[in-house]
Amino acid sequence: YLFYSDLLPSKDDKDLTQYFLLQVVDILLNYIKKTFDAKSKILDFHHPHQLLEGLDGFNLNLSDHPESLEQILVDCTDTLKYGVKTGHPRYFNQLSSGLDMIGLAGEWLTATANTNMFTYEIAPVFTSMEAILLKKMYEIIGWGEAEADGIFSPGGSISNLYGILVARYKLYPEIKTKGMAALPCIVLFVSEQGHYSVKKAAAVLGIGVHHVIEVKCDERGKMIPDELEKNVLQAKTKGQAPFCVIATAGSTVFGAFDPLHAIADVCEKHKLWMHVDAAWGGGLLLSRKYSYKLSGIERANSVTWNPHKLMGVPLQCSAILIREKGLLEACNQMQAGYLFQPDKLYNVDFDTGDKSIQCGRHVDIFKLWLMWKAKGTCGFEEQINRYMELAKYFYKVLKEKDNFQLVFDAEPEFTNVCFWYLPPRLKYITKGLEREQELHKIAPKIKARMTEEGTAMISYQPCGDKVNFFRMIFSNPATRQTDVDYLIDEMERIGKDL
Amino acid sequence: YLFYSDLLPSKDDKDLTQYFLLQVVDILLNYIKKTFDAKSKILDFHHPHQLLEGLDGFNLNLSDHPESLEQILVDCTDTLKYGVKTGHPRYFNQLSSGLDMIGLAGEWLTATANTNMFTYEIAPVFTSMEAILLKKMYEIIGWGEAEADGIFSPGGSISNLYGILVARYKLYPEIKTKGMAALPCIVLFVSEQGHYSVKKAAAVLGIGVHHVIEVKCDERGKMIPDELEKNVLQAKTKGQAPFCVIATAGSTVFGAFDPLHAIADVCEKHKLWMHVDAAWGGGLLLSRKYSYKLSGIERANSVTWNPHKLMGVPLQCSAILIREKGLLEACNQMQAGYLFQPDKLYNVDFDTGDKSIQCGRHVDIFKLWLMWKAKGTCGFEEQINRYMELAKYFYKVLKEKDNFQLVFDAEPEFTNVCFWYLPPRLKYITKGLEREQELHKIAPKIKARMTEEGTAMISYQPCGDKVNFFRMIFSNPATRQTDVDYLIDEMERIGKDL
Repeated sequence: YLFYSDLLPSKDDKDLTQYFLLQVVDILLNYIKKTFDAKSKILDFHHPHQLLEGLDGFNLNLSDHPESLEQILVDCTDTLKYGVKTGHPRYFNQLSSGLDMIGLAGEWLTATANTNMFTYEIAPVFTSMEAILLKKMYEIIGWGEAEADGIFSPGGSISNLYGILVARYKLYPEIKTKGMAALPCIVLFVSEQGHYSVKKAAAVLGIGVHHVIEVKCDERGKMIPDELEKNVLQAKTKGQAPFCVIATAGSTVFGAFDPLHAIADVCEKHKLWMHVDAAWGGGLLLSRKYSYKLSGIERANSVTWNPHKLMGVPLQCSAILIREKGLLEACNQMQAGYLFQPDKLYNVDFDTGDKSIQCGRHVDIFKLWLMWKAKGTCGFEEQINRYMELAKYFYKVLKEKDNFQLVFDAEPEFTNVCFWYLPPRLKYITKGLEREQELHKIAPKIKARMTEEGTAMISYQPCGDKVNFFRMIFSNPATRQTDVDYLIDEMERIGKDL
Repeated sequence: YLFYSDLLPSKDDKDLTQYFLLQVVDILLNYIKKTFDAKSKILDFHHPHQLLEGLDGFNLNLSDHPESLEQILVDCTDTLKYGVKTGHPRYFNQLSSGLDMIGLAGEWLTATANTNMFTYEIAPVFTSMEAILLKKMYEIIGWGEAEADGIFSPGGSISNLYGILVARYKLYPEIKTKGMAALPCIVLFVSEQGHYSVKKAAAVLGIGVHHVIEVKCDERGKMIPDELEKNVLQAKTKGQAPFCVIATAGSTVFGAFDPLHAIADVCEKHKLWMHVDAAWGGGLLLSRKYSYKLSGIERANSVTWNPHKLMGVPLQCSAILIREKGLLEACNQMQAGYLFQPDKLYNVDFDTGDKSIQCGRHVDIFKLWLMWKAKGTCGFEEQINRYMELAKYFYKVLKEKDNFQLVFDAEPEFTNVCFWYLPPRLKYITKGLEREQELHKIAPKIKARMTEEGTAMISYQPCGDKVNFFRMIFSNPATRQTDVDYLIDEMERIGKDL
């Protein structure tokens, strides 16, 4: 048997090391081929206790002693075998889905380079690529300033936290040293359909969830600007200090776009920081046909934009963009002498670490850079336009069917399409509480069956007064019309006897 | 020319896709071989403006139109060519270094699986592995409780933030809803050698940097427990409310271990939460010979431990461990209905997302799990013991040389060894301010030369009243005694005429 200690750098055996890594790659290539084969199962479902107890020799427990390289390869195969193929054409479960081959190549290279974003010193190429991509993104947003600022963060929730953090610092710079005790009772605003990370951030930042004021939405899930202004005035009357509005561009469930211009007007009038959570919707800026849906984003003070969602970049890849240059660093810098020495041989403006709330920071930029090189802006545009077309197609098909009911009887705003499946027996129950209770149980049952059979994955949730409904999402480049048709057939097959 | 659109899933061309990915792997394998070749340069240094302007056809700018796959492969080669080989035997620049082949295989697989840690539903194997590894880590820390809690986070700074966040919530659960306004003036304590992320966290959390009280250290950089108690009492006298102490196990610059038992005594006496920042030192718990240096860590309420440092796991891999089960979720949960449905087909206790301050969360667990399988606990121990031996060797060699001066004239506590190089001409300058000013300039000059020539990378910094000194770190599995000897020769060669 061979062991890790037979590989580089323990032993100088280049050939064996290469052989081992190529064996791993062979496992990965087989997985990739299966991923894109619509006939393969998306997953081979097992319960947590089954996995933890060990399946067919796949033992998750760790020992004091090494396992052979042969066993390591078997473990790699098993890990993929019992996992979920998130790139499968019928994986519709999350806003992030799909497996881009260029992005994947980018991640493999990033892993091999294994460096850290805090200084130019140890990541000269990657920090330069970050500077270039951030600039590209400011331009696409439409900020007229010669210079803006930003950083890639470990996800949309952290990016939203950055937005609120910088907003607070801009209005109350004393927060950094003195803490919340030096501030009035600050409050922020987000729509009732906004992402829950805003509340998480308020809890973390010491603002408190009660000081996140939820603004009412219209029937399509968009923030109502008049309600926002009413809430701002009410807060002021109570002696609270409004400082920030989080507008949503592409809400998680409905895919709604808040009216950014009208919100910007309220923000300007009341001198509030405007943050746009475009984690999901940001990619639409690359589509000349649909970017109008984010019109007004150029008036934002900060924007969250996750290329790992609509743009299909592998996880994680999220940017926080700040219109005013310098704020991010002023807010976060602590000038750790051991990392950010001023007496280096290069221009230390490129050491971006002190802008971050992190110290070490994973390289998330290369896969995005490489995908942009390979596709060009036009390639992203084409892909995104196709998702929008698929969403319209799906909507039209469902509209024609009497065993499906759409949550909104209008064309989808984005690639989210929300709907119920109605089993035949529900037709005999008159509309009312009992029918709603029964309908609430349908989506979980269909999902459970599809999961057990591994045929498709799609999410469901209740929302407000709406009982459990499915949320279809198009963000998977492998998905074709036939997969959409299949999903509908599958739901009818499973659901008809429920 | 071929383009991304000729690959899966745009076109169903499995062979071409495989060919492209194998070409990428070929580039990576060549890079790996060079990385471990001590004769290769660590980096080919260029200034930021040179990279941004474009080098020998390596153009970082992005276009509207796609580049060919051939160009993408060239870009991959160039990205590695102008980067830093962090696995090179003479890369001593950061606490995280080295390139582990099993960890690398783990990262390649993680990238290919491209999923998200928030639910068991889409990451059944990875969330199970996380549960197993967290349990392993509690046991190694020595927590007697049947159950503890924890989560992997995007780095040590975020892990430290979690520790302070949970400490605050435990003492003042009303913080989550009401914010800091509901709390007294809370203060926390960290040694003057503690990591700057504690201050960053205090700024983010709305506590304020002025409410982080720095406790004096002894001459070796360890927190003085009597000083801690004095500071706690002083704060109380001022009407402040002490709530948390951050002890450091392995400080960044000196590698110092705070006396954890004595600090735990103070914490118990004054009912303070004890967080141990063992981001750097945590790995030493795996060494039966050296784990005594962290004696008392079992009394901590929370611990930060970064496997991506001493254990050599690829970046990012950091854990926050909390002794009291349930606190992490109570502190952070927002019960987003669209993600954490209660009516799933499996035990939803395995959906860990609501413990997190993030929403999506990168899979950082697999590479650690795979390395543990491949090495066993004993393999980590062996590697870490070797680093400790190398540090002692390096110390002994420097001690014998009159052109080097050690910052501490005693055996290193950890793998950090701090020292000055003294050029011959400094011998003719009498000790005093002028000599110090000259000495301060030496390390940056030597580093600049080594960087330009690509022969070795090591960090330097000033600290307190000590002018710029080098900090040697052993955490790179490729490093051998010959590399240490080389570094000393190289410094003498470059430094003798400075």
